[in-house]
Order: sequence, then structure tokens, then C-alpha cells
Amino acid sequence: MERPNESLFLDDLEVGQRFTSATHVLDEAQIFDFARQFDPQPFHLDHAAAGASLFAGLAASGWHTAAITMRLLVGERAPFVGGIVGASVELRWPTPTRPDDVLRVVSEVLEIAPSRSKPARGMLTLRSETLNQRDEVRQILVSKLVVPRRPAEPMPRHAGASEPAHGQSPS
Amino acid sequence: MERPNESLFLDDLEVGQRFTSATHVLDEAQIFDFARQFDPQPFHLDHAAAGASLFAGLAASGWHTAAITMRLLVGERAPFVGGIVGASVELRWPTPTRPDDVLRVVSEVLEIAPSRSKPARGMLTLRSETLNQRDEVRQILVSKLVVPRRPAEPMPRHAGASEPAHGQSPS
Repeated sequence: MERPNESLFLDDLEVGQRFTSATHVLDEAQIFDFARQFDPQPFHLDHAAAGASLFAGLAASGWHTAAITMRLLVGERAPFVGGIVGASVELRWPTPTRPDDVLRVVSEVLEIAPSRSKPARGMLTLRSETLNQRDEVRQILVSKLVVPRRPAEPMPRHAGASEPAHGQSPS
Repeated sequence: MERPNESLFLDDLEVGQRFTSATHVLDEAQIFDFARQFDPQPFHLDHAAAGASLFAGLAASGWHTAAITMRLLVGERAPFVGGIVGASVELRWPTPTRPDDVLRVVSEVLEIAPSRSKPARGMLTLRSETLNQRDEVRQILVSKLVVPRRPAEPMPRHAGASEPAHGQSPS
């Protein structure tokens, strides 16, 4: 499925649910810019050095791929109420990200765990693959995200839903 | 210990060895710049919104902390022969990174695993804490890095050491 139009509470999500981001067109200038600022290693900055490296060609910093992935996950507005707030993540880069990549992120809900100590929120485990236009997997990100629960609704549904409450969930 | 002056092979490292990076002075402008480009959520871009968020004040994107950490790990020249090449990482952000943070990275070698299938290299597990000037831990990064092994030395030590070989290790 495409991204939902409304930001979602933890209670609106289900295991197996999938989201696809918009795309980001990468180029050499962006790779150089990011690398100069955050990861100035030769294989991110120079074609000849990159060709002789383990990457066998110019590669974006893995942290650049991660940052672009975040940009695509956030989109025009974060898909979850309260934004995308990561507690911890695991990251792998199965193949190097290349200058001509058109990147998109396909995410799947792996786990939903309401908090016991903080009933107003819970932990969402989301697996996000960053793919290019040839469906080559550039990054696999598994994130633990803090997502608010839908607040209690003492009033009828249409009224309760418009309340920006931070109250406790009924369950 | 401080960073070594020479880039190291896998064989030069030992479990428990520690490295301390230089420092990076963060400010609000850098936080805004990074967030606009890669993580445009209100709590990274706006003091009022950040104050009302889970972060209770302006916070850098976790990906910004990760990128600065990489910059500090690379330093003037990567500490390992062949650079810092990550295969996979785990990241946690115990506390939010703040505009006035002076960040440094303290790394410790957790594990050294020569490759069985590729005798010329191995996997280094490095734990890197990103701390501020008050020793508050902003990020914990555990990285699996690909590091070359010291090449075989058929000639006397001083000659063999100057050879930029990619040959197999003797063991």
C-alpha cells in the first residue's frame, strides 16, 4: 500500500502492513557533498580510489544512504503521530549505493508492542528496505520506534478523534 | 589511548583496545541544516515544537549524531588500513543530542574475527560511544567493520612492511 494520508497511532497499525516511500534521485555531487562533510574517505570522494577499493567504484557513504532513507520515511509528513522517533536501529548495507541510484524505501511492520509502564505509547518494529530502480537492496534498516497509542475516547468517536490528547489508553 | 599514528591491520588490534577521537562542536545551525536536508521533523527544526515533543527541547536528528560520529571516527585518516568499511551496525540514542554539545567518540575493540573464506581480511566489532562535554552518552554504535589482515612477509620485516600487497596472510 501507499503511505496513508493521516498520521497513524500505534493502534492503527498491524503486523505485515507495508508502506512505500517516494523516490530520491542520487547523483555524484550529493555523494561528494555528504562525504566531504561526514565521511571523507577516498572511496566516497574519488573515482580512481573507489575503483581500487573494496567497493570497486564510487559508493555513497552508508550514513548517506541512511540519511536519505530517513528523508524518504518522513516524506511530506511523518506517517506516525508524534513523528518518527527511533529508540534503536540495526542497519546493513548489502550492496554499495551508486551515483545513478533512484532510491525508494519499502517498509513493513514487524512487531507492535504496547508499553506496560507507559500506557500512552508503545514500540513499533519497522523493517525498511532501501532499493534502487533495479530493485537492488542498498540498505536494510530495522528500527524500534516510539509511537503514541490512540487516546481514550470518553466522548463519541467523531469528537474524541479530534482531541490532541496525551491521555492514557483504555486498555 | 589516543588514536594511533599509523593505519592498522586487523592483526595489529587487540580486544579491549580503546581509541578516543577529536571533538566536534555542535550548534543549532548545523542541527537545522541537517534536519532540513534529511530529517525535517518539527523537533529538529523548531524550538517550540521541540519543547512540546518527547525530546523536551531542540534535538539533533539521530542520523546527524551518527554522521558526526563517522566524521570523528575517520579523523584525519581512517585508523584502519583500507578505511572504515562497515558491513552492519547497531545504533542506540540513549539521550537526545543538543545544540551546545561538544561531541567526542570513545571506541573499544570488542571482537576480532579473521575470515575463513577470505584469508586477506577479517571482521572487527567496534563499540563506539558518542559523548558530550559532560560525558552524557548521546549514541552507542556497535559496528562490524571489514579490516584487511597484514600481508604475508616472505622478505625481512622492514622490506615486507613497505609492500602494499593484498596477498594472503600466513595463518
